[in-house]
Amino acid sequence: MAYINVPEGLPGIRGLMAFRPETAQPLNDLAEALLRVENSLTPGERELIATFVSSLNDCFFCQNSHGGYAQHFLECDMEFIDSVKRDYQSADISEKLRALLTIAESVTKGGKFVNEEQVRKARDLGATDREIHDTVLIAAAFCMFNRYVDGLDTWAPDDRQYYIKRAAGRAHLGYANYDPRK
Amino acid sequence: MAYINVPEGLPGIRGLMAFRPETAQPLNDLAEALLRVENSLTPGERELIATFVSSLNDCFFCQNSHGGYAQHFLECDMEFIDSVKRDYQSADISEKLRALLTIAESVTKGGKFVNEEQVRKARDLGATDREIHDTVLIAAAFCMFNRYVDGLDTWAPDDRQYYIKRAAGRAHLGYANYDPRK
Repeated sequence: MAYINVPEGLPGIRGLMAFRPETAQPLNDLAEALLRVENSLTPGERELIATFVSSLNDCFFCQNSHGGYAQHFLECDMEFIDSVKRDYQSADISEKLRALLTIAESVTKGGKFVNEEQVRKARDLGATDREIHDTVLIAAAFCMFNRYVDGLDTWAPDDRQYYIKRAAGRAHLGYANYDPRK
Repeated sequence: MAYINVPEGLPGIRGLMAFRPETAQPLNDLAEALLRVENSLTPGERELIATFVSSLNDCFFCQNSHGGYAQHFLECDMEFIDSVKRDYQSADISEKLRALLTIAESVTKGGKFVNEEQVRKARDLGATDREIHDTVLIAAAFCMFNRYVDGLDTWAPDDRQYYIKRAAGRAHLGYANYDPRK
């Protein structure tokens, strides 16, 4: 039972979005712009940043929902997603993505934890201004989404396969016209 | 100098919004829905929650921008805003708003810091489900905005009067059609 009276049977952010569609729309528009609209970072890479931040914030619903999407787009298995969450420094990812995850990790602690050296390193590895911008905003946005979902004590299915199956069936739909009741 | 090449002369989030209008629009739509659209919490109360969270996150630009709006809508002086930032437990605010600020403070630490007793207390003092929802989402959203502004190391005018004067002249414009270049 969440702290507020959300529609039954809708886990995580879905119940909150059904409760308050007026704020759901800009939240979904933001997710679409950050995670799905054509960009030099792939949807899989961007969903992986979202998953990583949600894992740092210990938000079960978000790390599994977005982990499911990351797994779908990256065409990888759950063990790969878990390897990034466990230790991204040694995970099998590009050096550029590793540098962006370092920035995302700092943002999760607080904006002032990002430093010039982290940004320079990402840039030296080929990250553009827009990629650095989007990494910071994706990480910041998931510091919001995670707090929203857990701050209202929403429930979430325990079975991780639930999220993986759901993501595979829904990844093509995007977020802009997201219907939290479906 | 911010970490990325934003247009010159635009402080805080304004430079970032001019750099990336595709994400600026949903961010402004979210601010409008949370802080300005008609609600049982007044714009002044909601801007005060935003100011308080931005102060906890030590974001100078956000706490002064939104502090300026709070001061305008509440028709108070800067000392009142500062009294809430310094010690909201003893500040001259309603007991309901104090209970909502306790929830906002917990959200700032992390979603799981909100507890049943905090929510029950707010409810006992008259807070509705929607007010509790909006307080959590305002606090969560400013954990995003603060990280966005500081994570990219944007500059901000030092003079607090700058923000107060600007807010007084712009409060009626709202956020939905916000032009970061003006």
